[in-house]
Amino acid sequence: MDYPFITNIRIRKICNDQVSDTDDHLAVEEPLEIQMLSGNADNRVQRSISVTMRTPGHDNELAAGFLFTEGIISNHQEMLSIKQEAFDTNKVLVELQDNVNPDIQKTERNFYTTSSCGVCGKSSIAAIKTASVYSNEPDTICLKAEMLYSIHDIVREQQAIFDTTGGLHASALFDLRGNFIMLREDVGRHNALDKVIGASLLNEQLPLSNSILLLSGRASFELVQKASMAGIKIITAVGAPSSLAVELAKESNITLIGFLRNERFNIYSGEQRIMM
Amino acid sequence: MDYPFITNIRIRKICNDQVSDTDDHLAVEEPLEIQMLSGNADNRVQRSISVTMRTPGHDNELAAGFLFTEGIISNHQEMLSIKQEAFDTNKVLVELQDNVNPDIQKTERNFYTTSSCGVCGKSSIAAIKTASVYSNEPDTICLKAEMLYSIHDIVREQQAIFDTTGGLHASALFDLRGNFIMLREDVGRHNALDKVIGASLLNEQLPLSNSILLLSGRASFELVQKASMAGIKIITAVGAPSSLAVELAKESNITLIGFLRNERFNIYSGEQRIMM
Repeated sequence: MDYPFITNIRIRKICNDQVSDTDDHLAVEEPLEIQMLSGNADNRVQRSISVTMRTPGHDNELAAGFLFTEGIISNHQEMLSIKQEAFDTNKVLVELQDNVNPDIQKTERNFYTTSSCGVCGKSSIAAIKTASVYSNEPDTICLKAEMLYSIHDIVREQQAIFDTTGGLHASALFDLRGNFIMLREDVGRHNALDKVIGASLLNEQLPLSNSILLLSGRASFELVQKASMAGIKIITAVGAPSSLAVELAKESNITLIGFLRNERFNIYSGEQRIMM
Repeated sequence: MDYPFITNIRIRKICNDQVSDTDDHLAVEEPLEIQMLSGNADNRVQRSISVTMRTPGHDNELAAGFLFTEGIISNHQEMLSIKQEAFDTNKVLVELQDNVNPDIQKTERNFYTTSSCGVCGKSSIAAIKTASVYSNEPDTICLKAEMLYSIHDIVREQQAIFDTTGGLHASALFDLRGNFIMLREDVGRHNALDKVIGASLLNEQLPLSNSILLLSGRASFELVQKASMAGIKIITAVGAPSSLAVELAKESNITLIGFLRNERFNIYSGEQRIMM
């Protein structure tokens, strides 16, 4: 394994009144501070942008994906470098090109925030629906329903390596023929998606308008928002969507599928893209 | 039902290549802006503290719980009123007593944050482990393992009303004899816990050192942190804990139990409180 996804721990198991002390595995959760260096050549400013609780690994992708899906950077070329110091792997510094000056004030979160939010700190509720640079691209995507049946099985196989902990969310990408492209896992579902989008950004593969996104859990507003930022048109989730996730998917012309399992699923939005 | 937890939607179901259009239910997710009015009598300042995506209902509890678990207020008496306007139920205003001036700068989140975090915006990673005002209280709590078997069943029964959507997290409180006290549900697990703690705060029932907390999903660092702020000593989760959740539980002398189901569970921390 390349990354410290999993840690070992001694635990006490209770089962039908029987006690046993044994070794077990936990998903690793650690804070990552994303810092950004930006400004003009003669006035470079380094600042903290976020601290997020994440599973270590693919941290550069996470940092790049976060800056992109939050609208702080708008493309790969705005970044000069991404550095993670060897002695402090819980910090990543993203250096922007000279004269790339994101309007931090515009998006700055003026107040406290908490989790599963993704809209935190926008200065008003009205500002929630961040516009994707790709959202208005037309498409003629048409998928066979049966092709979607298989992608969940593929993700389950890919996750098998890590699912000893029972504690990781996954985001995965497939092409429109159902071929597996990439999977990322994290204790935070938003981080797993930021890693997938960040990897695509760093590989200059945005927009992801010809990809299918699979989410291992529920589809929240935040996840649909991030997917929308990356130009994704097909979101499939193993769990349920929320009301606002469906609303945003409809407004963004995204096909949103939930409860994808065992040759069945529900279509909440964009059903015109799914053929029998 | 008192609150709009659930909304109806028309969806397309695909099952073994059969298509049917039908009515279905979704968990409601909407933003809540928490505003705070504080300062001296001659200089009152109103400011936005947080926007969180939540399931409507028990919003006053959520606001109070959030301010408390984030360390912005330290007790019930610091609040003068909590108001939710009839025409905009997505805003709650918490008015503090004159001369109660939380040091917003100290805890202010200077940067962007994202979800499942709860540590976002603390100015450094070192500041993550917020100290609970109750953390050093001694206790002699001792529980029979078999009593814990039953509390999960009780929560499942309580949740049955709402589990048509498949999209809600729950936090529940029991007393040390296993008697059910309270349950709150939300699309965000942190919100469900803030609602439980907020309700206890408003009822002047803190610290919750004689309560058992049950979480319907996984136990993250953030949830253990919030529980610790409320003086909770026993946390049981239906899902897995993360590495940092276990670490914080150990440091805070909290008994942390995971995978509680079917007459079995794992003890990750504080096993001295569990007897057979």
